[in-house]
Amino acid sequence: MSSTFGTALRVQIFGQSHSPAIGCVIEGLPSGFHLDLQELQRFMDRRAPGRNAWSTPRKEADAPSIVSGLNERGQTCGTPLAAIIQNTNVRSGDYDEMRRVPRPGHADFAAWEKWRDVHDIRGGGHFSARLTAPLCVAGGIALQVLSQRGVRIAAHVSQVEHVTDEPFCALENTQASQQALNRQIDVLRAGQDKGAFPTIDPVAGDRMKQAIEQARQGRDSVGGAVECVATGLPAGVGGPRYDGIQGSVARIVFGIPAVKGIEFGAGFAVAQMRGSQNNDAYELRNNKPCPRTNNAGGSLGGISSGAPVLFRMAVKPTPSIGLAQDSVDLVSGKPATLQVRGRHDPCVAARAVPIAEAAMALALLDLWLAFPPARSR
Amino acid sequence: MSSTFGTALRVQIFGQSHSPAIGCVIEGLPSGFHLDLQELQRFMDRRAPGRNAWSTPRKEADAPSIVSGLNERGQTCGTPLAAIIQNTNVRSGDYDEMRRVPRPGHADFAAWEKWRDVHDIRGGGHFSARLTAPLCVAGGIALQVLSQRGVRIAAHVSQVEHVTDEPFCALENTQASQQALNRQIDVLRAGQDKGAFPTIDPVAGDRMKQAIEQARQGRDSVGGAVECVATGLPAGVGGPRYDGIQGSVARIVFGIPAVKGIEFGAGFAVAQMRGSQNNDAYELRNNKPCPRTNNAGGSLGGISSGAPVLFRMAVKPTPSIGLAQDSVDLVSGKPATLQVRGRHDPCVAARAVPIAEAAMALALLDLWLAFPPARSR
Amino acid sequence: MSSTFGTALRVQIFGQSHSPAIGCVIEGLPSGFHLDLQELQRFMDRRAPGRNAWSTPRKEADAPSIVSGLNERGQTCGTPLAAIIQNTNVRSGDYDEMRRVPRPGHADFAAWEKWRDVHDIRGGGHFSARLTAPLCVAGGIALQVLSQRGVRIAAHVSQVEHVTDEPFCALENTQASQQALNRQIDVLRAGQDKGAFPTIDPVAGDRMKQAIEQARQGRDSVGGAVECVATGLPAGVGGPRYDGIQGSVARIVFGIPAVKGIEFGAGFAVAQMRGSQNNDAYELRNNKPCPRTNNAGGSLGGISSGAPVLFRMAVKPTPSIGLAQDSVDLVSGKPATLQVRGRHDPCVAARAVPIAEAAMALALLDLWLAFPPARSR
Amino acid sequence: MSSTFGTALRVQIFGQSHSPAIGCVIEGLPSGFHLDLQELQRFMDRRAPGRNAWSTPRKEADAPSIVSGLNERGQTCGTPLAAIIQNTNVRSGDYDEMRRVPRPGHADFAAWEKWRDVHDIRGGGHFSARLTAPLCVAGGIALQVLSQRGVRIAAHVSQVEHVTDEPFCALENTQASQQALNRQIDVLRAGQDKGAFPTIDPVAGDRMKQAIEQARQGRDSVGGAVECVATGLPAGVGGPRYDGIQGSVARIVFGIPAVKGIEFGAGFAVAQMRGSQNNDAYELRNNKPCPRTNNAGGSLGGISSGAPVLFRMAVKPTPSIGLAQDSVDLVSGKPATLQVRGRHDPCVAARAVPIAEAAMALALLDLWLAFPPARSR
Repeated sequence: MSSTFGTALRVQIFGQSHSPAIGCVIEGLPSGFHLDLQELQRFMDRRAPGRNAWSTPRKEADAPSIVSGLNERGQTCGTPLAAIIQNTNVRSGDYDEMRRVPRPGHADFAAWEKWRDVHDIRGGGHFSARLTAPLCVAGGIALQVLSQRGVRIAAHVSQVEHVTDEPFCALENTQASQQALNRQIDVLRAGQDKGAFPTIDPVAGDRMKQAIEQARQGRDSVGGAVECVATGLPAGVGGPRYDGIQGSVARIVFGIPAVKGIEFGAGFAVAQMRGSQNNDAYELRNNKPCPRTNNAGGSLGGISSGAPVLFRMAVKPTPSIGLAQDSVDLVSGKPATLQVRGRHDPCVAARAVPIAEAAMALALLDLWLAFPPARSR
Repeated sequence: MSSTFGTALRVQIFGQSHSPAIGCVIEGLPSGFHLDLQELQRFMDRRAPGRNAWSTPRKEADAPSIVSGLNERGQTCGTPLAAIIQNTNVRSGDYDEMRRVPRPGHADFAAWEKWRDVHDIRGGGHFSARLTAPLCVAGGIALQVLSQRGVRIAAHVSQVEHVTDEPFCALENTQASQQALNRQIDVLRAGQDKGAFPTIDPVAGDRMKQAIEQARQGRDSVGGAVECVATGLPAGVGGPRYDGIQGSVARIVFGIPAVKGIEFGAGFAVAQMRGSQNNDAYELRNNKPCPRTNNAGGSLGGISSGAPVLFRMAVKPTPSIGLAQDSVDLVSGKPATLQVRGRHDPCVAARAVPIAEAAMALALLDLWLAFPPARSR
Repeated sequence: MSSTFGTALRVQIFGQSHSPAIGCVIEGLPSGFHLDLQELQRFMDRRAPGRNAWSTPRKEADAPSIVSGLNERGQTCGTPLAAIIQNTNVRSGDYDEMRRVPRPGHADFAAWEKWRDVHDIRGGGHFSARLTAPLCVAGGIALQVLSQRGVRIAAHVSQVEHVTDEPFCALENTQASQQALNRQIDVLRAGQDKGAFPTIDPVAGDRMKQAIEQARQGRDSVGGAVECVATGLPAGVGGPRYDGIQGSVARIVFGIPAVKGIEFGAGFAVAQMRGSQNNDAYELRNNKPCPRTNNAGGSLGGISSGAPVLFRMAVKPTPSIGLAQDSVDLVSGKPATLQVRGRHDPCVAARAVPIAEAAMALALLDLWLAFPPARSR
Repeated sequence: MSSTFGTALRVQIFGQSHSPAIGCVIEGLPSGFHLDLQELQRFMDRRAPGRNAWSTPRKEADAPSIVSGLNERGQTCGTPLAAIIQNTNVRSGDYDEMRRVPRPGHADFAAWEKWRDVHDIRGGGHFSARLTAPLCVAGGIALQVLSQRGVRIAAHVSQVEHVTDEPFCALENTQASQQALNRQIDVLRAGQDKGAFPTIDPVAGDRMKQAIEQARQGRDSVGGAVECVATGLPAGVGGPRYDGIQGSVARIVFGIPAVKGIEFGAGFAVAQMRGSQNNDAYELRNNKPCPRTNNAGGSLGGISSGAPVLFRMAVKPTPSIGLAQDSVDLVSGKPATLQVRGRHDPCVAARAVPIAEAAMALALLDLWLAFPPARSR
């Protein structure tokens, strides 16, 4: 079903931007896991808007309440875990015009073609970026389970308009590159605690904030890209064909609003490469075979290779902009001009960082549980 | 399950490169459809190797036999359609070394981590590009059903190494661009019948063939990219979140061996764009609202907008190359050098063209049946 | 997944007896349906305990709160509908002994073998009959949708110990039997409003209540059976093999605690019948072919025949009884004697009546949406 | 999908009675299992008709050909296993009348309401008992895997018309009853090898054969019942609610043509029992807790208790009888009389015995893999 993801770990997302609540149900979590609710809240806080200068001033109380799935000691007890987030701070009045005049770049028109006037358009309904909050609840839990199993997942804004951040050291898989990658992740984690813009290089972060500020002042928005990496995943996770690492990560990532592309490892650059450049040779390290380079981005034939899983995703500029745009009136059938009011992020790339981590965590944990390596069976 | 794709139209792929047969089972096809078996065979022939200078000389008899799902008049009768392709021309002797020494860039090592020595490594087993034949059977059938419903799907090699083809006229959605796009598709179809290299611009095709030939002579391989478009899909197809157009197409496309990236519409270019540039304004055409540009690639919030669905995928260079490569011996635990022998495509982009069309067709028909627009319910 | 039911209409149940809340998420409801919340509450009240002499005095506030899936006018809007019921009136102290000494007839021992001590045993956890409340929320909504489409569903207690009720007139399918069946359903509906024991024949109901009262006084419990019928379902609903009417109804019915058997139409009596007796001949009525008898219980080859769908289910005696029972101490590994305290129904058959209706409604609506007849496509 | 069964072990059945072939694809089998093809063929032979006096003289060559899923040593290699059975000995001419005049008790009318005239009615199409052959291929493989894990599954004809066989000693779970049950299974296995009628008591078998012969001579048919047991399944297999032992077994069993009811353990008899009678007390045996009686039929809350899993299913009399029956002509809309010609079993209970075993095996192995006990994780 359309709002459900996963095979062995199944996540069902529910809610609309202005319904009484949003939430998720997660079935298939390993039982006996002690969930750290404070850590989960810290993760949620990274996604929530209204906490810094470069995002929308709209504040959302993203405090998930776990209503089932834990026993009296706070451990997962083998039954579906449900989490609810109340919707507050809702201003439905802003959205009246949308019913008739679809906003360019939003799902309004597509939703009208699907559901006509029964679509709940208030705040974007089920399409709202607000629905990434329950995704982050589920993903935040998956991150904790994976962390206990030795997997680290981190993301950063790799691009905003023409500004790029230092990339992850993950196309190599030498001991030196692994250490460098871990340092990059440490830098990002340290920045998170201080509420820094999520780049590895703080200078790039400052220039990105300037680009975002310029767009905002022009009543416009800007696009960006997010790079995400997972280290510590054993080789042998995932299945061939349609439950592979790439396909599974891609399916959940394209469920994040605004994403228009995804690439793994060397990505689109492979189109220009020779096989002799792109193939990742194997070598022995501590008597264990491992790929020396990682152009494959950690996935071969859909199955993890033991090297870091690496993807980049393109995030389009927020479609809600203050500039006048051409549209049509669906009821009168006449041309119309639209100026989106309300409080909107001029760039969603920064908020997409924890969402990318959540998506990666859910896809990888699901595959690990559903299609494990030989050693763990 | 890992070798199954789809919700309302479910395709199960089976077979290994050297098992007695390969095939697929398709459940959920609309009943009463009269299948054109000759057209299906013509489509299969486009994928089959051994028919031209730029692909492997290995010939495969890709003649699918439909063993169930049709009534005595050749119509789909509502029950699962199964198709079998016998495996012939198999030379298992080529693959003995692989058991011990994984080929860089292939799934050998990942499969060993998953299944140890019970993996059927002969010819690449279930990971072989051979398994795209049953995908093309299923996709070829989906193409026929979609064609009857007014959908045209076409793909071309958009890049090989540094050579690029003329792109599809699908980022615009004006009447002129629609006509131009249809002309491009006509050109590609005409070329198919003559066995031409699948580019819109024949000069680009010639230069791509040269680049491939150079790689072959260097016992190397080259990467490429394929662009695929679908016209005529009504607005309102697909679901929000995890059964959207993008996620669904991406999941099946990453099931094609060698794909490392996918982007829709403006794709990764959105990272550099302003909202005012990227948003597709609406206008009226024949009293019907439609987007004037198509940076969204036909998908908004996972649901079709009525504009052409457009994606590009990156295809890595064939990992099987004649040059010596470093690897390890999994049994002795010692370094090893590998030189892949046998008959291999120096570039898989050209053969990936019908596979991309098959994948697009299966994803779109599945979504149309599972998550239809308002008007068709 | 284990707590999820359905193909096109998917219901996810969550919650434990003593978790903060229980609830369900329903994906795939037809959009644009105006939900009657008062009617839903009346349906919920029929399941809730503590309202009459023959059930447990424990009162449960079964007031579902719909937190998503409706638009601002109360119509289903095409997105997942989530309903929450808070857990109140919880006395966890009653259940301490259970952790060590499993109650005969309950799932305690099986759950211990599955989850060891992380199982949430409080109040029976996820196995509690309490979890039939969210099933009734989902089923109550399905009943409203089906009612709008002309389907009536009703159930009654057909047996308690040695007392039997008048059966439904549904093994015949003549015009007279259809009228008689409708009168029986009217009688049951009238009784519901007055809180009567759910039998067609009130004398049978009185004798059943006596049998239950005797069991209660003996600190024991009694079993029973429930018969359920659906009229108005068109022919052609359901699929062959594993998504047939019988298999689908059976799967959800066996998800109701205490059910040990299910039979359709003539049921187990077919074992003694000749084909000439059991076959339902066809006749014309209003120029439409229909079966004259209904030994098939409305299902042929998994697909509805147009005759009433009829099943009977056996409900075991409540396992929680006040009499001393032999068990073992799972921790000490020694024999133990157990006397279940607390407030328990001496017979669950009466409360199972709306649950059977809910289960039938969910199975039939799901099949109607997933595998519709020719005419409605 | 309708012809697919299972969660972790997914079986897809395909084929029609008169299509070129029938078969199945099984995904999720444990890898590294060495399949015994001769044992599989012996199992298939038990289902095949035409081998004895009490079944149809129509001979079917049920020789499955495994075309994928095994490596070169005959081990399951982790990829989907596909098996094909060619359809031979097909006489389509027998079925011409059926298109217009549906046979009472068959799926003809229901299929016409679903698919109109595109339904492949030849030989009953996808509804034919012939389709239990691929189910037996899949089930026969599951039986081998379960046997290696210590599970024995056996079934017998427990009733034909008014004749009953000795029941399985499985409502008790003492050491004596376990030994007695094993002896009963040994008796059945010995009989199989000699082609005996599948009863525990040979006298009952002779009387059943007489009852069948009488029905045949009257151009009629008779119903029956089959009882099936599984021993050796550990406690803790299965999930709560909708993937429980009972619901899962029931779903696949109702996919067997002619089944009209199923009950577990004490079954419908629980309706007349007190809790003190029906509850299965626990005792220690070899320091392990186990239920002393087995009224639960091995399933508590959907999860196995360690006692034998026991079910009985009712099988209706073969609908194809030589006597004249009333029907209607679907084309002319007039009453019609029908006399079914051709070669038909007068009682399908005996042939249903290996099918019941196959169904039980598939359901239990699927649950074991998808929802394993604590100890095996």
